[in-house]
Amino acid sequence: MGLTVSVAGASGYAGGELLRLISAHPHLDLGAVTAHSQAGARLGDVHPQLVSIGDRVLTSADPAALAESDLVFLALPHGQSAALAAQLPERVKVVDLGADFRLRDASSWERYYGGPHAGTWTYGLPELPGQRAEIAASARVAATGCYAATITLALAPLIAAGVAAPTDVVVVAASGTSGAGKSPKTHLLGSEVMGDLSPYKVGAHQHVPEIKQATGAVSLSFTPVLAPMPRGILATVTAVPLTDADPREVLRAAYADEPFVHVLPEGRWPHTAATAGSNSCHLQSTVDVDSGRIIVVSALDNLGKGAAAQAVQCANLMLGLPETAGLSVDGVSP
Amino acid sequence: MGLTVSVAGASGYAGGELLRLISAHPHLDLGAVTAHSQAGARLGDVHPQLVSIGDRVLTSADPAALAESDLVFLALPHGQSAALAAQLPERVKVVDLGADFRLRDASSWERYYGGPHAGTWTYGLPELPGQRAEIAASARVAATGCYAATITLALAPLIAAGVAAPTDVVVVAASGTSGAGKSPKTHLLGSEVMGDLSPYKVGAHQHVPEIKQATGAVSLSFTPVLAPMPRGILATVTAVPLTDADPREVLRAAYADEPFVHVLPEGRWPHTAATAGSNSCHLQSTVDVDSGRIIVVSALDNLGKGAAAQAVQCANLMLGLPETAGLSVDGVSP
Amino acid sequence: MGLTVSVAGASGYAGGELLRLISAHPHLDLGAVTAHSQAGARLGDVHPQLVSIGDRVLTSADPAALAESDLVFLALPHGQSAALAAQLPERVKVVDLGADFRLRDASSWERYYGGPHAGTWTYGLPELPGQRAEIAASARVAATGCYAATITLALAPLIAAGVAAPTDVVVVAASGTSGAGKSPKTHLLGSEVMGDLSPYKVGAHQHVPEIKQATGAVSLSFTPVLAPMPRGILATVTAVPLTDADPREVLRAAYADEPFVHVLPEGRWPHTAATAGSNSCHLQSTVDVDSGRIIVVSALDNLGKGAAAQAVQCANLMLGLPETAGLSVDGVSP
Amino acid sequence: MGLTVSVAGASGYAGGELLRLISAHPHLDLGAVTAHSQAGARLGDVHPQLVSIGDRVLTSADPAALAESDLVFLALPHGQSAALAAQLPERVKVVDLGADFRLRDASSWERYYGGPHAGTWTYGLPELPGQRAEIAASARVAATGCYAATITLALAPLIAAGVAAPTDVVVVAASGTSGAGKSPKTHLLGSEVMGDLSPYKVGAHQHVPEIKQATGAVSLSFTPVLAPMPRGILATVTAVPLTDADPREVLRAAYADEPFVHVLPEGRWPHTAATAGSNSCHLQSTVDVDSGRIIVVSALDNLGKGAAAQAVQCANLMLGLPETAGLSVDGVSP
Repeated sequence: MGLTVSVAGASGYAGGELLRLISAHPHLDLGAVTAHSQAGARLGDVHPQLVSIGDRVLTSADPAALAESDLVFLALPHGQSAALAAQLPERVKVVDLGADFRLRDASSWERYYGGPHAGTWTYGLPELPGQRAEIAASARVAATGCYAATITLALAPLIAAGVAAPTDVVVVAASGTSGAGKSPKTHLLGSEVMGDLSPYKVGAHQHVPEIKQATGAVSLSFTPVLAPMPRGILATVTAVPLTDADPREVLRAAYADEPFVHVLPEGRWPHTAATAGSNSCHLQSTVDVDSGRIIVVSALDNLGKGAAAQAVQCANLMLGLPETAGLSVDGVSP
Repeated sequence: MGLTVSVAGASGYAGGELLRLISAHPHLDLGAVTAHSQAGARLGDVHPQLVSIGDRVLTSADPAALAESDLVFLALPHGQSAALAAQLPERVKVVDLGADFRLRDASSWERYYGGPHAGTWTYGLPELPGQRAEIAASARVAATGCYAATITLALAPLIAAGVAAPTDVVVVAASGTSGAGKSPKTHLLGSEVMGDLSPYKVGAHQHVPEIKQATGAVSLSFTPVLAPMPRGILATVTAVPLTDADPREVLRAAYADEPFVHVLPEGRWPHTAATAGSNSCHLQSTVDVDSGRIIVVSALDNLGKGAAAQAVQCANLMLGLPETAGLSVDGVSP
Repeated sequence: MGLTVSVAGASGYAGGELLRLISAHPHLDLGAVTAHSQAGARLGDVHPQLVSIGDRVLTSADPAALAESDLVFLALPHGQSAALAAQLPERVKVVDLGADFRLRDASSWERYYGGPHAGTWTYGLPELPGQRAEIAASARVAATGCYAATITLALAPLIAAGVAAPTDVVVVAASGTSGAGKSPKTHLLGSEVMGDLSPYKVGAHQHVPEIKQATGAVSLSFTPVLAPMPRGILATVTAVPLTDADPREVLRAAYADEPFVHVLPEGRWPHTAATAGSNSCHLQSTVDVDSGRIIVVSALDNLGKGAAAQAVQCANLMLGLPETAGLSVDGVSP
Repeated sequence: MGLTVSVAGASGYAGGELLRLISAHPHLDLGAVTAHSQAGARLGDVHPQLVSIGDRVLTSADPAALAESDLVFLALPHGQSAALAAQLPERVKVVDLGADFRLRDASSWERYYGGPHAGTWTYGLPELPGQRAEIAASARVAATGCYAATITLALAPLIAAGVAAPTDVVVVAASGTSGAGKSPKTHLLGSEVMGDLSPYKVGAHQHVPEIKQATGAVSLSFTPVLAPMPRGILATVTAVPLTDADPREVLRAAYADEPFVHVLPEGRWPHTAATAGSNSCHLQSTVDVDSGRIIVVSALDNLGKGAAAQAVQCANLMLGLPETAGLSVDGVSP
């Protein structure tokens, strides 16, 4: 008899991955499973990989039904979390995988997302200093975005240590297509994405304020690219060094005790396939011989450490469970 | 303090998947991990996804070291299992993922594989009638080949029930590239396989005798195709009906109590991505309106139910563990 | 001052490939370029690969504007060709890439497609006996469907020669995703199709009547599979032999003088990547050692010989141009 | 009766693309076609897409046979061009696709490549100021590397105009796998590259000196990434602005008369698939709202404008042919 968790927005890719992780979790029972347009459908028709719960039926997002859980995961389209969260009683813990409650600065929210700012919840990246305890003490957590998680784990310790300048950070990050969601759009068709690398929102991406807030960067150029693969983010983060410190050693020290963030042995560089299906982030760093810039490469699964697995990690902390329960450090590859 | 299992041939794709499953298995400890040309390498360099055991070092295949295990998995190149198996004491159980001990008919072995026939071990497909008990009682098991597993699960119950004719079976099956192994060959380069469907060994494939033995087919045309994806086999199996029985109902009855073989609800057809990373086989069947042939489509993960996960399922039976321990029915998708 | 050809339905994948071929054609000028929902868009926004005509604007399908051409290609959604064709004067030649005018048998049309049968035009596969002259003499041609072209080129000569039985033909064919069109649908998203093989319309596909009509088959099982690549069809066609004739020699004789159908040297099997961007079909055949069935493997580009390039080949014949003008036998690979 | 050109190193990917372009070229005849380990093989076995010349046989690289051409393309492994070039008479023109003769600075060569510097030939990028005339007047041309071409077309006009600072340039560029060649290596297997983004030679890539020489950059951080697609390079180039000039307008002015370099309309960003099979480079630029950096995104086909098509463009100039002969501005997509 474990704790019960529910998933609102279970028909999307992050929702499906949450269901997979919850089904295999040793301490969690699956409560309500809700969706919007797919309400009434069987899970097996929406997520045919989820055989173990394929006969379950998606229901509409009824706050009362969700409130019978110990914790609710919100995996809704951006902008829809606030309304549903407001209808959940305080005793029900909530992890929101959307952007609604991530930003501390309301004006940034309004400039990049538009509309009123819903508020600020505890930021769900346990590897940031002090954040693990804060998450454990919180009833409301806003999980980190997938790009922000990839970049923050690479950069935050270097800026915090005074080793990398917070100005003039340059990031190029490529993501698998599941990061763009499951809504049918022409530019996301297999015929379009296979064989293609395609940049988007160049020069002004709405995730920049979150990345700056989480990393401590003051100015940052961020170019995202859609890559021909279902899962994974690879971020190349470069920054101007402020000291002679070896950035790799700074990262190693920062993550020495972390179960899910792995600074690779020298000579090995992160690549996305090694993280598929896991809650791991792989990191490596060097100093560029020509420019002198610090280069950090960071890889994770956008649906894993970038979304669903990270959310389960937060939920484990919030529910007093072992932080690593139900999560894998090993990827599924090839 | 669990049981100890070792893996010989741990550097290949089936070996890597075995290590992933063993590392996460609730009742198994990992013993020796051996390889041939890669002996001396760290696992993290060979299988970067296996963070949890990345510091382990591959050793040469020393029979004495392997003999300190309760069970040894042989994931060696075809033709190398017999020599190593002969050096393991009887008390050490063995699951061979190679073809050496699969065939009962020595002459078929010699015709298709060449060289002397090594012998015949218990065939490792628990879903065949009577096979589960036989595997549990055996110390030596020859796991089913990936194509044979896909096709046999689709066809054997129909032939056994007298519903499908054992003659004139026609099978076309496409496999992901991991089924072709990790040895560097030009035709397996990413540049060659992406965007390509490529048939091979058309008209005379060495797996035909195993498929016939396991399915009960008397004559069978089998055309394998290499598909542009890392994992998965999709087999389209057609056969002449002998009765009016609904083939789907025959399959449902045959697998009603099986944890890993799933006859899908009507209207849903198996596809490979839904089985990735799992030990599941998905099946669906109908009768073709034009030709009257029975069509069965079968999908599984060639490294999962087609190799490593199937081998762990056999090992669970041989070691008196719950048959499903450490195995997933749910796939990792997208 | 060449001949002018127009394209109705230019926003889809077949339409885009038609535009590419026409732009590079030595004897054709591009006339009207029309679309439905995309009317008003610039070609560069719809087909960014078509730089040479990127500034052209898609217009609505105005029959008067189309009628100013020597020939009109109809690349419309299935079922929309008849209405537009009826508005074009007889002096304007028409090649329809849709299914509306392919079938001779109205009852087959009604059973598989529904609705009234529009009529029957000359069938656009020049490699069928007598068909080249008939196409050259026609003002209305219905181009062959992509699956039908792949299978017919493999099978028709064998049935015509009495070498393969017209009954109990079994075909499994896998297609790249562009064959499923450019309309946004969830199951065609890159996240869904990459890493996946997915059968569809198993047991009752609407193309079966066309395939039977074109090949001479009397009963045929056809299973189509969606494959993780943008282009290409690979068909495995098996049939019961009626004689001892070598099927490969029959095919070689049938296509000895054909510029675009290539029976490969012995030992080499067709694969789709080798045909990408070309008007070629690659064939190979053998007799299966176990079942005795004839196996023919056929590969082509579903947008090339399976659609746009085939349509240009027909147009060349209809306009009195060299049959091979503007078409490539060589593929673009890797 | 055209001019005769030969290809040394015809078995690789750039060699195959050269053969495709030469076969379809209106003014060129194919002379000798040579390879090293593949000498004696038929072209159809090595490049099955090249049906039109599939019966030709690869010969050993005999300088006398090559000397019977008007021009020889060298598509050899890096480091092997100098020895063969030394054996060709001066009247035979040569385009080298390798790196041997690209660098002006011998010490850079020795530091990054090792071994003695072979010398410096005319650099084969006609779009650089003054370079078109120089190529036309040269008998020896060193074609631009694929990464260098992608980056130089994006950056050189901005540095030359004083709009972008030559210091602290940051480039992240991802390439399809054909850029890594056709030699069988484990990390290039389809099973490894599909679903994966993998950086390499981070912090010290041997192409940096060429990129700096061609772009005018003084310090540059370059991180290359292997992407899961056969063809294409996407480079994200960022630089510090020195003026308020719109970088897009600078690029438009620089390439206004160029047939193969296309600054896209505002709002459209380059992506690799649109350039496949063509000699086009697509560019777009903006100023990042947060960092103020200039961002230029550049896309081309690494085998097209990045190698074989660029080499044919140079050859056209050297042989007095129309510069665009036999080359396509339109890509083959999807």
